[in-house]
Amino acid sequence: MIKEKGILFVLSGPSGVGKGTVRKALFEKDTELKYSISMTTRPIRSGEQEGMDYFYRSKQEFEQMIRNNKLLEYAEYVGNYYGTPRDYVEETLESGKDVFLEIEVQGALQVKENFPEGVFIFLFPPSLDELKNRIINRGTETEDLVRNRLLAAKEEIEMMDAYDYVVVNDEVETAVKKVQSIVRSEHCKRERVAKQYKKILEAELG
Amino acid sequence: MIKEKGILFVLSGPSGVGKGTVRKALFEKDTELKYSISMTTRPIRSGEQEGMDYFYRSKQEFEQMIRNNKLLEYAEYVGNYYGTPRDYVEETLESGKDVFLEIEVQGALQVKENFPEGVFIFLFPPSLDELKNRIINRGTETEDLVRNRLLAAKEEIEMMDAYDYVVVNDEVETAVKKVQSIVRSEHCKRERVAKQYKKILEAELG
Repeated sequence: MIKEKGILFVLSGPSGVGKGTVRKALFEKDTELKYSISMTTRPIRSGEQEGMDYFYRSKQEFEQMIRNNKLLEYAEYVGNYYGTPRDYVEETLESGKDVFLEIEVQGALQVKENFPEGVFIFLFPPSLDELKNRIINRGTETEDLVRNRLLAAKEEIEMMDAYDYVVVNDEVETAVKKVQSIVRSEHCKRERVAKQYKKILEAELG
Repeated sequence: MIKEKGILFVLSGPSGVGKGTVRKALFEKDTELKYSISMTTRPIRSGEQEGMDYFYRSKQEFEQMIRNNKLLEYAEYVGNYYGTPRDYVEETLESGKDVFLEIEVQGALQVKENFPEGVFIFLFPPSLDELKNRIINRGTETEDLVRNRLLAAKEEIEMMDAYDYVVVNDEVETAVKKVQSIVRSEHCKRERVAKQYKKILEAELG
């Protein structure tokens, strides 16, 4: 039996694309994936649990972790830090479980920098036609506005280049199926599996 | 709507691994994939149809095609040529359909040389333990025999390096599911899809 390390999957995309919906639908189907638990400096709320909802740390501790490069990504939001602890991710992967992270584009690019061996999935807006129409319809407004929308769209497309896969979120069911296929097929990638086979063969055969 | 080119998938692996079984089970489930039709110089048999079972050509025509690099791979078997016609594959891909080719390892390596943009899947023997045991059990025989088995195994592993994916054929159902996942996820690869999106955006937005 081959003991394989887990893989970090990062689902991201522009705001409003439906990342949360796809992630929830995926986790309803797939109980093997481990959702990445964030770390935060915001106070624990009633009903929440350390290591379940978040890892709760003081601002001082969090900033220490930033300095020690112990976070795959972090951001400040309404006066509190939120981030992805590297150790938790690495220990989960070591144990053979896949880690799944759902995050906005800026965070995903930080993770990519700190953990390039992750698999990065870009969720694309439900319909490209919609995006196009939205931009072109602005033509009734000022030309500047059209140009700004165009630039924003182009920036979004540029960010796509940092990702390994693009999944169009036209239908949640279809998008989930595609993400599941990516998870399954990544485990069949020769670079990952061949090494394991060779190791076993070499260990057994000398 | 995005008009995407098809992808050539090549399923291969050592003889006896169950390539044909996996391919048949796959085609029972997936009617979207187009099976690559081979070309042969052997005479047409009763019940067979040109362009359905094979493309039938004279030896002279076949050798002309070899010289013109019109075959992705070919081999001679009991006095007849068998090969994969490049034009048929390329036209099918152009039409947006995926082509699926099931072939032994030598043929797959030829295809890889002539069509590196294909996706190459290596079907691995049902059980690695079995392979190991087979080799080690020979230890009761001469050391030379053990070494030969070992070399053969190592050669097989070396060939795996030319492939993109490795699927263990432990259970046909599972193997088919993995191949289907590979097909689906390859269509989500950013290198393929992003280009299409960019083209559309550029065409629409100037």
